Amino acid sequence: MKLQNAKGARDIKPEEMILRQNITNKLKKVFEKYGYNPLETPIIERYDVLSVKYGAGADSDAQKEIFQFKDRGKRKLGLRFELTLSMCRYIAMNPNTKLPFKRYEIGRVYRDGPIKLGRTREFYQCDVDIVGTNEVIADAEIIKLALSVFKELGLDAYIEVNNRKLLNGVLEYANVKKEKRMPAIIILDKLKKIGVRSVNKELKQLGVKASSVKKINEIFKAKENLTQLRNLIKNDEAKEGLDELNELFGYFSKKELENVIFNISLARGLSYYTGIVFEGFLRKSKVTSSICGGGRYDDLIGLLLQSKEKIPATGISFGLVPIMEAIKLSKKELKKTVTKVFVIPIGNTKNKALQIAQDLRKADINADIDLIGRGISKNLNYANIMKIPYVIFVGERELKQKKVKLRNMKSGKEELLSIDKLIKKLT
Amino acid sequence: MKLQNAKGARDIKPEEMILRQNITNKLKKVFEKYGYNPLETPIIERYDVLSVKYGAGADSDAQKEIFQFKDRGKRKLGLRFELTLSMCRYIAMNPNTKLPFKRYEIGRVYRDGPIKLGRTREFYQCDVDIVGTNEVIADAEIIKLALSVFKELGLDAYIEVNNRKLLNGVLEYANVKKEKRMPAIIILDKLKKIGVRSVNKELKQLGVKASSVKKINEIFKAKENLTQLRNLIKNDEAKEGLDELNELFGYFSKKELENVIFNISLARGLSYYTGIVFEGFLRKSKVTSSICGGGRYDDLIGLLLQSKEKIPATGISFGLVPIMEAIKLSKKELKKTVTKVFVIPIGNTKNKALQIAQDLRKADINADIDLIGRGISKNLNYANIMKIPYVIFVGERELKQKKVKLRNMKSGKEELLSIDKLIKKLT
Repeated sequence: MKLQNAKGARDIKPEEMILRQNITNKLKKVFEKYGYNPLETPIIERYDVLSVKYGAGADSDAQKEIFQFKDRGKRKLGLRFELTLSMCRYIAMNPNTKLPFKRYEIGRVYRDGPIKLGRTREFYQCDVDIVGTNEVIADAEIIKLALSVFKELGLDAYIEVNNRKLLNGVLEYANVKKEKRMPAIIILDKLKKIGVRSVNKELKQLGVKASSVKKINEIFKAKENLTQLRNLIKNDEAKEGLDELNELFGYFSKKELENVIFNISLARGLSYYTGIVFEGFLRKSKVTSSICGGGRYDDLIGLLLQSKEKIPATGISFGLVPIMEAIKLSKKELKKTVTKVFVIPIGNTKNKALQIAQDLRKADINADIDLIGRGISKNLNYANIMKIPYVIFVGERELKQKKVKLRNMKSGKEELLSIDKLIKKLT
Repeated sequence: MKLQNAKGARDIKPEEMILRQNITNKLKKVFEKYGYNPLETPIIERYDVLSVKYGAGADSDAQKEIFQFKDRGKRKLGLRFELTLSMCRYIAMNPNTKLPFKRYEIGRVYRDGPIKLGRTREFYQCDVDIVGTNEVIADAEIIKLALSVFKELGLDAYIEVNNRKLLNGVLEYANVKKEKRMPAIIILDKLKKIGVRSVNKELKQLGVKASSVKKINEIFKAKENLTQLRNLIKNDEAKEGLDELNELFGYFSKKELENVIFNISLARGLSYYTGIVFEGFLRKSKVTSSICGGGRYDDLIGLLLQSKEKIPATGISFGLVPIMEAIKLSKKELKKTVTKVFVIPIGNTKNKALQIAQDLRKADINADIDLIGRGISKNLNYANIMKIPYVIFVGERELKQKKVKLRNMKSGKEELLSIDKLIKKLT
């Protein structure tokens, strides 16, 4: 048997995990500052929940890529491919949930799809959602939360904003037939990736007239502001979209608006969005894919519930992989261990050395100790390779003076200290 | 379609998640204080890794309960049923890993087995292991770590300790044939659960002679100390086991030994243990199942590697479910939200209220705000139900004085404060 990982799954080594935990802790901190509570849904779900049809044939890629299996009772199950669907199931199964319901979930999801750089079959999503309000202030809060995340993580990033209603209005203005508007939007979403020529080609393949494509291109090219668009496009959907965007931008200061930018061509690739949409990007980074994205999906939960009642919702998802990549690129080297000090017994001091390690741990100092009984130079070599900042030598002679020797591994400086002074120094 | 969870999987609601995150954060803190680094292995593994035979037919229960499926390339996969096996695969695939390797992993595992109270098909394991040392000091460190976990979590708990080598010695002394010793140990492990009569019956069914069973019972009943056992049982395995236990207990203070207790009948149910074993229990709690358990498994990694080289290892696993249960029983009520203060706009102050919420968040205060535009009494009701400790009213009149009204939801006390003073008060 050859020992190997499942295809598309990988081990996260300690040095990468230390960085990742640092990032997810910061994400959680920001999420909780905004009053979002943690919810955890299972990774295994009923297959009929995962495969529910909740849009005009959308998300079918992810749904085609579900890992499927049966339990011992022959029930069809699958691994979840996103977190939103499980949250909607939770809301549906817990009708007494107090609305608005603000939750976050950081969890693994699975897609049995093609592998490429930065795309695995097991990966993390970090989702924040508000269920139960259709007020624009809720979308504003989500965007403010994203700005706080950028700041907390030290990322130079911005968010592009648009509104599906405005896009529908643009398509109406360009005389695109009603039933072609949703697929046209999904095509327009690829503008950044495949360029204007390919988009136009796909629009024509869809059956959008050349005159309509021309009109769309004009609007997109002009990069007009909201007032100019209002004067140009006067249909109801456009007006509603523009009103919402006006209200939204009104919640931001001039300084914030440097990082919250209107982009008429932003569409988002999922069909379930119904209003304001947004997507975050890094400035001056080699990571060019978006680092977060989301928007309003006012119909999704109602569709899932097979009910006529609308439960409006808005939310955002942060991509742990591009964020990790960007932060890794900004660092010279990764921290290899959580350990701050390594305790080395010299001679017959094993028991006393363990006691000293315990004293350090009680004082909240991360301490490791030689557990193999190696010689001094091997222990120093180990501490060096692991990049542990300090080493303590516990020798019989020093112990008689009730002291130990502390060595700063970077400077090489050594000093004799009592345990009390040692703890003070390392705290 | 009826919306439901997969059988044996459940959603963890916010109030339970808040408690659980509190517990896992404390676990991580203790693990890192002892110099263990995080490692994350995938939940999906190759089926041939999961089904590897690494003992005398042991663990077959868990291996019979693997959720199995195939990926799009027809590779046989499964969901992991424990964390240890994946760690061993990691060590095997990363031969340059610096030893000793100290890692922790807190993660979900899956067993498609029967459901009962406290037993689900998706559950968490919290594992701490040291790979690469056969020194007894390593086992001592693991037990000290467990004592620190009990202290950090405020649990009145103790650890029972024994040694498989001593148990083998007892069986040799009782004239149990060599090939019956391992299955006999697995039977002896059930003593607490099924009682001495059933154990004796199973031993006889295994083919252990009545005279042997009698001898085992005598040893177990006498609860002799290590010195008495040494005088009684003189074979090599017993001696080795007793030497290790003597060294082990030597690493603990008299006070610590109140919670580290020798128990000759402790066996542990897995066949891969080779030496010192331990299991932790609560005192004065309704939770009677063990809360942690582990021990030495010096042969497991070598077996998995199909190599003659021994890679000794020792470790412990904490059960999140019994620990959660015990802590829940000790609490009057669970915290329902992370939110500390709820901001209520009165009149036309929505924008200003959002700014105040942002100021609080910047000061690291968890703040939520009305996102539906409800009336005052509905907002107060919401804050009350969610048990949010403070509410802030943002009214036009107060804003003119550059102040807001803070209400302590428990005492009902209200006061007018500037934003600066408000932040100071809530920090």
